[in-house]
Parts: sequence; C-alpha cells; structure tokens
Amino acid sequence: MTEVAQSGAIADRLALARSLADEAGAMALDFFNRRETLVIETKKNLQDVVSIADRTVEEMLRAKVAEAFPEDGFLGEEYGQTEGTSPFTWIVDPIDGTAPFVNGMPTWCVSIAVVRDGEPVIGVIIVPCLNELYVAAEGFGASLNGKVLTLDPARTMQNGLTGIGSNSHVTPEKVGAIVTALMANGGNLIRNGSGALMLAYVAAGKLVGYYEPYMHAWDCMAGYCLVKEAGGHYLPFPADQQGITKGAPVIAAGPGARDDIWKLADV
Amino acid sequence: MTEVAQSGAIADRLALARSLADEAGAMALDFFNRRETLVIETKKNLQDVVSIADRTVEEMLRAKVAEAFPEDGFLGEEYGQTEGTSPFTWIVDPIDGTAPFVNGMPTWCVSIAVVRDGEPVIGVIIVPCLNELYVAAEGFGASLNGKVLTLDPARTMQNGLTGIGSNSHVTPEKVGAIVTALMANGGNLIRNGSGALMLAYVAAGKLVGYYEPYMHAWDCMAGYCLVKEAGGHYLPFPADQQGITKGAPVIAAGPGARDDIWKLADV
Repeated sequence: MTEVAQSGAIADRLALARSLADEAGAMALDFFNRRETLVIETKKNLQDVVSIADRTVEEMLRAKVAEAFPEDGFLGEEYGQTEGTSPFTWIVDPIDGTAPFVNGMPTWCVSIAVVRDGEPVIGVIIVPCLNELYVAAEGFGASLNGKVLTLDPARTMQNGLTGIGSNSHVTPEKVGAIVTALMANGGNLIRNGSGALMLAYVAAGKLVGYYEPYMHAWDCMAGYCLVKEAGGHYLPFPADQQGITKGAPVIAAGPGARDDIWKLADV
Repeated sequence: MTEVAQSGAIADRLALARSLADEAGAMALDFFNRRETLVIETKKNLQDVVSIADRTVEEMLRAKVAEAFPEDGFLGEEYGQTEGTSPFTWIVDPIDGTAPFVNGMPTWCVSIAVVRDGEPVIGVIIVPCLNELYVAAEGFGASLNGKVLTLDPARTMQNGLTGIGSNSHVTPEKVGAIVTALMANGGNLIRNGSGALMLAYVAAGKLVGYYEPYMHAWDCMAGYCLVKEAGGHYLPFPADQQGITKGAPVIAAGPGARDDIWKLADV
C-alpha cells in the first residue's frame, strides 16, 4: 500500500473502532448495571455473569469487524485468533478489569486495537462508568473525550503516580520487590485492576508510567497506541519472536519517567 | 444522656452530616473540574490548587458545624483540633485522595465522621466523580446511595480484592512485604489513592478488607463507622491512649476475610 492508501485504511478502521467502542461500552455497562439481577435470574455466580458479558461483547465485535473488513485478522481474549489476509489485525479485550467489574468498581474498560504487521496503529479504550473515551491512531494523535493528549516531560516518577499490574503468572515476591523498588525511588503506587485502563491513564498523564511483568496483546495494544501517540514510550510487544497470543512484559511511560519506570523491570 | 436522647442527638447530627456532604462534595468537584484553569489563573501549581480546595471545604464544614452544634468538638486535616463540651467530635477530611485529585482520577472523596468519646457513631463519605454517597450511623445501619449494605461472609481474601494503603510514614520494604504476603495468601491488591474511599469499599463489599500501617483519624473514622454498621470488623483507633491527632494502624475487613486481613498486620 502507498502511504496515502495506508492512511485511508487506518481512517476507515478508526471510524469503525470508535463506533464499536460506543456499542461495546453500552453493552458491557448494561451487564454491569444488571449484574446482581442476572445472578439471581440465571442462578449463576458473578464470575459466570462477567464471562457471559465478555463473550457477548466479543461476539458482537467479531461479527461487525468481519462484516466491514473481512480481509482483516482478529484476536480476542475470549475466542482467540482468526488469521486475515490484509496487514491489519484487530485485537480486543471485551472487558479488561473483570475483577473490578465483578466487585462493583468503575475501573474496567473495553479495549480495541488494530495492529499492522504487529505494530499498534489504532487504540480505542472506552470506560463506561467514567464516561471516558480514549482514542489514538497513527497520524491522528491521541485524545481523551476529544481533548488532545500530549505528555508533559516535567512529570516524573517522584512527582506522579505509577501503575503496577500483576496476575498469577508473576510471583508474590516479584510483585512485592517491584513495589518496594518503586517506593524506594520516591514513587507512589496505583493498581485499579485494569491494565488497559492504566495504560490509557499513562497516555493521559494521570499516571507517569505502568509496569506489568506479564500481559497479553489484548491487554496492552490499544494502550500502547495511545501512549505512543501522546508522546510516550513503550516496550514493543514481541509478537514477531513468539507469536501474538503469548504473554510478555509490558512497560510504558511518559518522557519524564521513562528511565525510572524501565528500571523497575530489572528488579 | 439517656439512650433515647443519644439516638436523637445522633439523628440530628446525621441529618447535618448528609447535607454537609452534598455541599462539600459539590464544592470540591467544582475545584476538581476547574483545576487546570485555576493553575493558569492563580499561577500556582496543581498541589497548591488542591490545598486551596482542601482548606476552603474544611472552612465551610467547620463554620456550619459550629453554627449548628457549637458544643461539639471539631478535628480536620487542615486546621487541626477544636475542643468541644459535648461528648461529640466531628472529624473530617475535606479531600481524601489528593494524589488522585491532582492527577485527574475519580477516586477521591469527602469524609465526614462524628465520634462520641472516641468511637465513630456517624460516617458519611461522598465520591463526587462517581455519584456515590455512603452513609452510616449507630442504630441506623449503613447504605450506599440509599441501598442497605450488609457484608456477605462468603467473601474472602481469596475470592475478593484487598485494599492496601501507604504513605511516607511506612518504609518501602514494609509495603513490599505486605503486598507479597497478601498475594502469597491468594489475595489481590487494589490501591486507588484514597484510604477513606477504600474503607467505604470494604463496607460495600467491593473490597474484602483494607490495611494501612499508619493513618490519621480523619482518614479512617467515617470509613470505620461504615464498616461497623455493615457488619464488618475494624481495629479501633487508639485515641484514648495517644490522643486523636496522632497516626495509627488501620485495619478493616468483612467477616469472611477478617482473620486473613489481620494477619497482614503481623508482616
């Protein structure tokens, strides 16, 4: 593709990603608001209800992407990978932050990315409970609810907040050591239960950086595109080396915190 | 006072606490929404702006309490303690979670407590960005936006989320050790930057417990009342032994997580 054709291809997909985020966000929020009634109606537990919500939202996203761009690949947390014939693959997490979702906290989101040959070129994250829509695309910049995001180099680990993620792939000792290292270097910890949302917070300057030793592509690709377009740094996801479905360390930071955040990964 | 007189005294103060929470929440939210404009207008930094907001809200609360209950004591984070002649002392944190406030995150709140002879008998916490109002009083139970809160003993450290707090009074090594111990016992960490709000989350069952090695009375008294009235447990604040203005460990938990949360304090 020529550069102009590439840009048009991204613009077309960005338009779809934005409208899909609205639709997916509304679907997920409806499940969230009805979660306690659904537990009673379906005689299932909250974890089952969020799984149904996850799958329902991903099915909708898969169907609409396949209709609009049948040549594109698709990778979702729930149903895995469908190969495409174009250079583009959609990578979605229908609900990132299922623990906050299940426990009635607002910090969960829908994360929609498009990667071209492994590199994130579109990132859209919607946070239904907080009325936030984060949008970024190669050549289009990054925005939060329409306001352009540009990272301030004066924000550092010492004067800002740092997001840390963890899951069962990482030992308790490792997470404790990361927290100790962060605080010993004058940092302050946030963990809100959604890695995708914390990456969007990095792009918005709400956090100065984010580190999680093991994440999947569906957790980080949209956030990575946001961080990149806002002028931040990120550790590329090693899809080329290991394939797109395996986990890897995820690191992102604004320019003023980059060196300190990267050091956390050496702990 | 007789028991009936006590109950009437609490009801009168509860009515004021609720209306003050609305007013204080609206004032603080106005500062929050205008914080970037205020930085430009006042030529101060964000930290100064939140300090102005903090003081303005506390001044309003002090004045209105003094007008309605001149016999009551008052303790606020910003202006310290005023002794009263009744058994009641109002303990407020005008903005708990100044780091999230400054960094544009929604997890900050106004915390208003009334203690009688050191024991929390009213707790009202308003979260303006999330439209949440937590209310509790001795003999009146606890509620979130009018819905009664009753803790479920089936929620444990292993199937729920645990809040951890920290500040400069606690060493990085200690915080890391707490995080490691929590995760090694099958728990999962949340830190949203507001201890008062995380205590309210315990009362609402969003978190199964909360531990912070060093907090002040204005950070925890409203949350403690909420947790108690929802059927949870808390470590009494040692005001009798050391006075109400010094810090102390804060621990709270629902019934199913109590033993595991208390063990964190032995780390």
